[in-house]
Amino acid sequence: MTDFAATKALFHLPQGVIYLDGNSLGPLPKDATDRMARVMQDEWGEMLITGWNKAGWMDQPTRVGDRIARLIGAEPGHVVMGDTLSIKVYQALASALMMNPDRRVILSDSGNFPSDLYMAEGLIRFLGQDHELRVVAPEEVSDHITADVAVMMITEVDYRTGRMHDMATLTAKAHEHGVVTVWDLAHTAGATPVDLKGADADFAVGCTYKYLNGGPGSPAFIYVNPRHADAALPALSGWLGHDAPFAFEPNYRPGKGIDRMRVGTPPVLALAALDSALDIWDMTDMHAVRAKSQVLTDRFIAGVEAACPMLTLATPRDPDQRGSQVSFRFSDGYAAIQALIARGVIGDFRAPDIMRFGFTPLYIDEGDVDAAVAIIADVMQNDLWDHPDYKTRAKVT
Amino acid sequence: MTDFAATKALFHLPQGVIYLDGNSLGPLPKDATDRMARVMQDEWGEMLITGWNKAGWMDQPTRVGDRIARLIGAEPGHVVMGDTLSIKVYQALASALMMNPDRRVILSDSGNFPSDLYMAEGLIRFLGQDHELRVVAPEEVSDHITADVAVMMITEVDYRTGRMHDMATLTAKAHEHGVVTVWDLAHTAGATPVDLKGADADFAVGCTYKYLNGGPGSPAFIYVNPRHADAALPALSGWLGHDAPFAFEPNYRPGKGIDRMRVGTPPVLALAALDSALDIWDMTDMHAVRAKSQVLTDRFIAGVEAACPMLTLATPRDPDQRGSQVSFRFSDGYAAIQALIARGVIGDFRAPDIMRFGFTPLYIDEGDVDAAVAIIADVMQNDLWDHPDYKTRAKVT
Repeated sequence: MTDFAATKALFHLPQGVIYLDGNSLGPLPKDATDRMARVMQDEWGEMLITGWNKAGWMDQPTRVGDRIARLIGAEPGHVVMGDTLSIKVYQALASALMMNPDRRVILSDSGNFPSDLYMAEGLIRFLGQDHELRVVAPEEVSDHITADVAVMMITEVDYRTGRMHDMATLTAKAHEHGVVTVWDLAHTAGATPVDLKGADADFAVGCTYKYLNGGPGSPAFIYVNPRHADAALPALSGWLGHDAPFAFEPNYRPGKGIDRMRVGTPPVLALAALDSALDIWDMTDMHAVRAKSQVLTDRFIAGVEAACPMLTLATPRDPDQRGSQVSFRFSDGYAAIQALIARGVIGDFRAPDIMRFGFTPLYIDEGDVDAAVAIIADVMQNDLWDHPDYKTRAKVT
Repeated sequence: MTDFAATKALFHLPQGVIYLDGNSLGPLPKDATDRMARVMQDEWGEMLITGWNKAGWMDQPTRVGDRIARLIGAEPGHVVMGDTLSIKVYQALASALMMNPDRRVILSDSGNFPSDLYMAEGLIRFLGQDHELRVVAPEEVSDHITADVAVMMITEVDYRTGRMHDMATLTAKAHEHGVVTVWDLAHTAGATPVDLKGADADFAVGCTYKYLNGGPGSPAFIYVNPRHADAALPALSGWLGHDAPFAFEPNYRPGKGIDRMRVGTPPVLALAALDSALDIWDMTDMHAVRAKSQVLTDRFIAGVEAACPMLTLATPRDPDQRGSQVSFRFSDGYAAIQALIARGVIGDFRAPDIMRFGFTPLYIDEGDVDAAVAIIADVMQNDLWDHPDYKTRAKVT
């Protein structure tokens, strides 16, 4: 039983704000500033270069990776931190393609985050061969898993609508057709339970600045299925992924297991902030978070729909079909979100018409939901009418 | 005229330590901890997601890049921060190769840092075509600039010996033969004056945790010559390199100029620490630093050679031929460095036999050099004899 009042008390939440954008950037854990100061002064300041061993900086990417492994159903020792999510997408995609050298198609869907599609595009342009990025509608992915597909690259939860793919079913079908899978967990890590091991996913990647609260631009992670860990070839073969980085050998020899997915020097300070945020995650588990998230999102949907008939639910109504966000479509969504922010309810807007709200049980509770619903109702019925960004200029009922 | 006593006072330098390893990891600037705390509390904590605009996080990679541009002779607006040096090597190499699609050779030298060679190896393996990484001796690079070379990838200063390549001459010869150049400035940025504009270098990359004092694992930079800035194709085409990242378009359109070399979400906290370190660089210029560095390295060489005949200088004796480090060869160099560290003189060891010492005028002065020489003399003549790591067990004179 998680004490969510206790976890909430561990975050700095600004006065007068109801923060429903933790799915974009999580808030500051109260302990993180002191933790960072200690790492800077006691480790960097005092140990200098010896911090790589004495303070354990060199092992930090796998040590932190193991803390995330627990939250995404991964085996310990098979997650490593580093770089950004876009780089990790490229890294996973490249290794996956090299496992299927005779196939030329990367399958993805139009609900994927654009950066994932862009990274695939850039990779294909660079390869300069006859590869194809095949982008289909989210509901058509399963039908497009065919024997010409090399890699299926899917983001589990849609960043706009919150619709969730069925990882286990899609992965099983992919494997039946010899397709290697790359799962992007940007909107699932820390949002919903993930069972990478159970689903037998091949590669997974994710970011840590959303639900995991690692701070702006905090490092990404990559998971490689233990079946592939000693076989996957890294395209981004940096020295810290070498089997003996400090031997300074002239040729690359991939490190053992997940270590080969390390690339350059790890971002020690950023990982310290993330590590501090993960202390709070140790107080709970994803099933407790999921149960609370479904209570909060159901309550929010009911409240908003009752008060704001002009908003159309874009998120699946079945709580098992969605992540931990709720999105509504509204033609003047941009103006509405600006008006809400002015009233202290922070959500965000995604073009063309999505008003998006994230629910994060570690620090958002039923009281916040009710207060947010009341403000949304007032804004939609009254404030918006006079908002300078409001373009429709028509009664919003 | 730089007041180096004033710059030295701005660093935290541990008691009893003479730090000659700032070429590996620079020390903590005293202001950096407070700066980090303010960014965490006042920006991340209070502004939350709105920090991307309100606190200027989104422009931070080019704003910080401009501060580094001044130190490497780059035009303002043509340097951007992000990722690690290894990733930036890959990024530059990929773009450079796409500028020379009919050629297949990447030329480098055996003095290059292994990670650069490893990244090229991984890139070639991934391309799966008939590319070749041609690694020659440092002094033979010029003779190997031929019409079949697509890209010349060179680290300006050798990480082991400190020997410096002539960027202007090699770049000019490369251009005569239609070769695109990628310069790694890991051991030159903040160490020696660089004139990217004058040399007409095509691409340059570097790290910021050495001479620039950005902190362990601080972000890297990339420079693209203005001639190529709107033409270079990014292989790592992430959303923040898109011309309109927040339009979330389905297809990638490269951003203008250096912006297209951005990839994922910028590391805000790490960039804040680096930005704080760059405040100190504003108090000087690279020519003053270079003049002082040559005084310090000359003094160190003279002192050590007079007292320690068992050490063989590995660094060019001509100060214009070296970076800001001094290396000696010694068969039991590992043991010697351990014994020196035990006495508070921090240098480092690079296999097989290099004892390496970095000289950083911002916080190392003549007094430090003399004190270090005295300790090195004592260690080499006395302590080493009994050191547990000392293998030779022969008199070291």
